[in-house]
Amino acid sequence: MVNVPQRPKLEDYNEQLVLIVQMVRPKDNEEGFESEQVSFVLGTRYLLTFQEEEIEDCFDIVRERIKANQGKVRQQKADYLMYLLLDSIIDGYFPVLEDYGDRIEDIEDELAIRPNTNQLKEIYLIRRELLALRRAIWPLRNVSNMLVRGESSLISSEAQIYFRDCYDHFIQILDIVETYRELASSLMDAYLSSMSNKMNEVMQVLTVVSTIFIPLTFIAGVYGMNFEYMPELKTRWGYIICLGFMGAIAGGLVLFFWRRGWFEPFARPNIPLSKKD
Amino acid sequence: MVNVPQRPKLEDYNEQLVLIVQMVRPKDNEEGFESEQVSFVLGTRYLLTFQEEEIEDCFDIVRERIKANQGKVRQQKADYLMYLLLDSIIDGYFPVLEDYGDRIEDIEDELAIRPNTNQLKEIYLIRRELLALRRAIWPLRNVSNMLVRGESSLISSEAQIYFRDCYDHFIQILDIVETYRELASSLMDAYLSSMSNKMNEVMQVLTVVSTIFIPLTFIAGVYGMNFEYMPELKTRWGYIICLGFMGAIAGGLVLFFWRRGWFEPFARPNIPLSKKD
Amino acid sequence: MVNVPQRPKLEDYNEQLVLIVQMVRPKDNEEGFESEQVSFVLGTRYLLTFQEEEIEDCFDIVRERIKANQGKVRQQKADYLMYLLLDSIIDGYFPVLEDYGDRIEDIEDELAIRPNTNQLKEIYLIRRELLALRRAIWPLRNVSNMLVRGESSLISSEAQIYFRDCYDHFIQILDIVETYRELASSLMDAYLSSMSNKMNEVMQVLTVVSTIFIPLTFIAGVYGMNFEYMPELKTRWGYIICLGFMGAIAGGLVLFFWRRGWFEPFARPNIPLSKKD
Amino acid sequence: MVNVPQRPKLEDYNEQLVLIVQMVRPKDNEEGFESEQVSFVLGTRYLLTFQEEEIEDCFDIVRERIKANQGKVRQQKADYLMYLLLDSIIDGYFPVLEDYGDRIEDIEDELAIRPNTNQLKEIYLIRRELLALRRAIWPLRNVSNMLVRGESSLISSEAQIYFRDCYDHFIQILDIVETYRELASSLMDAYLSSMSNKMNEVMQVLTVVSTIFIPLTFIAGVYGMNFEYMPELKTRWGYIICLGFMGAIAGGLVLFFWRRGWFEPFARPNIPLSKKD
Amino acid sequence: MVNVPQRPKLEDYNEQLVLIVQMVRPKDNEEGFESEQVSFVLGTRYLLTFQEEEIEDCFDIVRERIKANQGKVRQQKADYLMYLLLDSIIDGYFPVLEDYGDRIEDIEDELAIRPNTNQLKEIYLIRRELLALRRAIWPLRNVSNMLVRGESSLISSEAQIYFRDCYDHFIQILDIVETYRELASSLMDAYLSSMSNKMNEVMQVLTVVSTIFIPLTFIAGVYGMNFEYMPELKTRWGYIICLGFMGAIAGGLVLFFWRRGWFEPFARPNIPLSKKD
Repeated sequence: MVNVPQRPKLEDYNEQLVLIVQMVRPKDNEEGFESEQVSFVLGTRYLLTFQEEEIEDCFDIVRERIKANQGKVRQQKADYLMYLLLDSIIDGYFPVLEDYGDRIEDIEDELAIRPNTNQLKEIYLIRRELLALRRAIWPLRNVSNMLVRGESSLISSEAQIYFRDCYDHFIQILDIVETYRELASSLMDAYLSSMSNKMNEVMQVLTVVSTIFIPLTFIAGVYGMNFEYMPELKTRWGYIICLGFMGAIAGGLVLFFWRRGWFEPFARPNIPLSKKD
Repeated sequence: MVNVPQRPKLEDYNEQLVLIVQMVRPKDNEEGFESEQVSFVLGTRYLLTFQEEEIEDCFDIVRERIKANQGKVRQQKADYLMYLLLDSIIDGYFPVLEDYGDRIEDIEDELAIRPNTNQLKEIYLIRRELLALRRAIWPLRNVSNMLVRGESSLISSEAQIYFRDCYDHFIQILDIVETYRELASSLMDAYLSSMSNKMNEVMQVLTVVSTIFIPLTFIAGVYGMNFEYMPELKTRWGYIICLGFMGAIAGGLVLFFWRRGWFEPFARPNIPLSKKD
Repeated sequence: MVNVPQRPKLEDYNEQLVLIVQMVRPKDNEEGFESEQVSFVLGTRYLLTFQEEEIEDCFDIVRERIKANQGKVRQQKADYLMYLLLDSIIDGYFPVLEDYGDRIEDIEDELAIRPNTNQLKEIYLIRRELLALRRAIWPLRNVSNMLVRGESSLISSEAQIYFRDCYDHFIQILDIVETYRELASSLMDAYLSSMSNKMNEVMQVLTVVSTIFIPLTFIAGVYGMNFEYMPELKTRWGYIICLGFMGAIAGGLVLFFWRRGWFEPFARPNIPLSKKD
Repeated sequence: MVNVPQRPKLEDYNEQLVLIVQMVRPKDNEEGFESEQVSFVLGTRYLLTFQEEEIEDCFDIVRERIKANQGKVRQQKADYLMYLLLDSIIDGYFPVLEDYGDRIEDIEDELAIRPNTNQLKEIYLIRRELLALRRAIWPLRNVSNMLVRGESSLISSEAQIYFRDCYDHFIQILDIVETYRELASSLMDAYLSSMSNKMNEVMQVLTVVSTIFIPLTFIAGVYGMNFEYMPELKTRWGYIICLGFMGAIAGGLVLFFWRRGWFEPFARPNIPLSKKD
Repeated sequence: MVNVPQRPKLEDYNEQLVLIVQMVRPKDNEEGFESEQVSFVLGTRYLLTFQEEEIEDCFDIVRERIKANQGKVRQQKADYLMYLLLDSIIDGYFPVLEDYGDRIEDIEDELAIRPNTNQLKEIYLIRRELLALRRAIWPLRNVSNMLVRGESSLISSEAQIYFRDCYDHFIQILDIVETYRELASSLMDAYLSSMSNKMNEVMQVLTVVSTIFIPLTFIAGVYGMNFEYMPELKTRWGYIICLGFMGAIAGGLVLFFWRRGWFEPFARPNIPLSKKD
């Protein structure tokens, strides 16, 4: 109980029940979450809780209810109090998860406009943090299951019905985490494809411009040679014909690329500068 | 029951059975689906249903049958009515899924013609929505299973046979969702490969053109130098020989690339402009 | 039974056993397979089968045996006949699967010679069709299992031994499908890598040629400038020295690239034109 | 027991229990870990251990405790000693895993600054070693489970409670290994995306520079042609107008690329040389 | 038994036990393995074995032991002989697997030096063969399990202990196959990343060279124009200033690229030609 961190678990020592869980909370001024270990010791007539740090708001709502004598808190036994606290911990996961949902949506939107390295880092970070979150939550599956099945005599059958609620919420959280992990993973795919797309555009611009001008430059180079006997140079219409010929080549290539759709990247609507990150 | 949204579940409170499911419906004028939570409370002699919104057509067919006294509706108990409604909800998933099947096929067809960013977004969107759909359906597996096994005394053994039908349909839906998810994921692979393919074509065009003309331009550049003592410039056949030499180099390179198959991207059939999205 | 399509399943209505399976058959003149739903109704003394279409060869071999009074067909009960028909259906999967094995091997061979878009489409198609095949086969796992365990009184213990054979074949089919799916998926990887490889070759050719000639063209450009005071132009050996200098640079670069192995793509053996698809 | 290496396992020969596990230890002066097979033979009144090599510090702490008569070591039976030794082996996995955590974080940091081939090799190596580590740990799952369930009469119920501790630690290790494997795998994705990113930057630089200067060079080439009749060459302002025209084209292209955000790669902050690996 | 190939299986016909397994053997002069079906028929007092081909060395060691009357072979029953033969078959898998381990390591080493298409083919081949190997081994899991649990009366409890050994070896083989499959799959990733890396290098070389020389060539082109009124051409220091200006631009660009680390690919140590494949 005192060693930190431990894996979430429920241990039944007959006369008392020890429950260790991770409480999470969004970080104050930045993205991500911080977690804190909370230990419960449930006896027949008492419930002890241990936290790492003092400042903690997630139990405040329960404390308020006790002080105000709201609801059934004071009439019920220790197991009901434990349910209330555990439920407030589980409810604390939802805002954290909503944060991830928002971040994933933000990246999606940005990715559509302008893929860049920051998104890459963000996606990786989200994947990493969701992995950490899952590691914190996963063991709770067994824990809630054990509470619901009421394997301990310290949990009254009445309280079991409440813990079933915890279990439902917990499964919902796990669902969301898995969904977000899959979304983050398919975002990585989307990023890669989007990059590959952007590269294609860049390459098309280069190829179109190079392919049109390189042959023309060659022709200009030919008539820039200093051979003494180059009859074309002497003719009256040589220059005009040469320019016309160049124009014809350029026109042909433009038509060729146009029909292949390679001018599309030139025509992409400009991205307003203000939207740059 | 009143809180929205909840996870689909079946709870057996002995004297009544509470079932919460998600009903889905294709969106009216756009792609995607909207879901709505429906709650059933089944007692021995009554069935209450709760919906979020008023307008809902998926139960209408059942209502019609009751009004018209069609089939066995009026002779049967509440559990049979619940089966009818649940079945109409499950049947409502099929048109939504067919939409996804169509969208996947559309992307496939488009991808073969001209891969572009819209498809990428569409694939990502489909993956995301199928994930949401699966999240709505998955918990139903246990629910239908419980109804089929007839664990509750409120479900008559006669009704169990009907619920087996629901279960079959439900499994079919889950199958289709998983199949579509795999297809969407392999579409992403196909997109990436297709992009990589397109880039190869672009690069081949650039490389062929550059590799042929850059050496020629260099030769033209050499004879454009202004050195006083350049004997080739003075000769009678210098120009012709120079052009011939350039032609030989160009011909050799063309042959080289031709045999390597690098002219293929030039020969690709034009894509009709009308097929551009 | 009448509704088409249904998911393969086995239902035991005590006095009769209903089995619905998918029969597959390679398409006549093209790749792919077509499937047809076959329903069996087994009673104690009869076996009814329903098919969608008339023309069907896969049962012919059984019909022949009955007509010719070959084997034990006529001495046995309806369950033995059902085994014979089911076995002929399962055996019908093997030629379809062999087709996929052949197609995968063909793509492999082609990929090694010349990766192109057709292979990409083919791989995607194979993945899609194998997915459909698996969807048709997967539910049969439970079905065969139920037949083998002899849960129905309509299946004599003697027939169970025969159905065990069906089960073995079925598991073998499932094995092959999964193996082919993994192969198709790693073919996609191989395709992508192969594309990336080809692009590398293309880029190397471009880079080698450009990097050698661009600096040389620059030098030629310098001595093509028309400045009045360019002392090199007047000297007797200027031109020769200039050419020598260019040759030295080119030689140095060639050596540099040679030692880096960048000339490899030039030396790749030509692909015979006849092998182009 | 004597053959090396064997798979970790627990075998119960009634009168004695044979346990074979892998002990791991970080390598002294390099990354990676070395593993050693340790065999336990537990009888009612004795515990034999076999190691491959002499030098081994991980049991030293236990030896110290025995010598110093610290804790309960001397009062307890052989099964308690076995727990102590097994626990010290399991604890030995943590520093090895922390090493991998550090290495993954290092690669992450480096990847953000400058992706290079060394990271690629490192990621591959980490994946390979974590795979090896998992192979060493995985079978222990059954082993610890068997010890916890107390299936052998040689493990007293008192010792079972201690072994539950081992089991918890072991599960934690397995969790971390799996998490690290997923991280390493998503690092590979991140590496690939990062590479693709870098290539995009390189291509943008090339494309911007080429696309601006290639058309200009062509114009310069045109007016470097030696046609006799080129009226523009004779005019007073021809040169100035020509330069102005070139400037206008360059300006237009710069504006075009600027608005497309293609100048970003030029503006990336320089990476201090000291941070090069 | 006579039909080839069959899926490995164990069938218990009360009075006799039929076991069908795949025996594998490294190919003689090339990579890969060949497999052969071996069938055992175990009765109370006899053991029949069927092989496809005559020449087979893997049983020779057992034959030798019988001839030499070594060990317990002659004193034991048929089930012990079956164990000996089965064990020699399972041991035959190890050298085949070691081959794959070696091949994977070879590719790893080569990949670090010079990625090429052969490795790609080799990786694909390894994945394919490991898949085939797994297909041959996988069903053995049930088989060994059944032998260990001693479900047949033909296997004495004494022999069960021996078969447990087989089971251990078999699980070890399966472990190795899975590990190698994961390694081969991450090798494919590594190959792709490595290719992408190499392309980056190629592109950097092209970009650095082009970006430095293309603007310079443009400047040279400008002063190669034939306008009559180009005052710079007439000045005494024009040529020198022009060259100086070019040098300044080149120097600036070199510095720019140097600080961005784009000169790294030029400095990569040469790969000795002898190491080319």
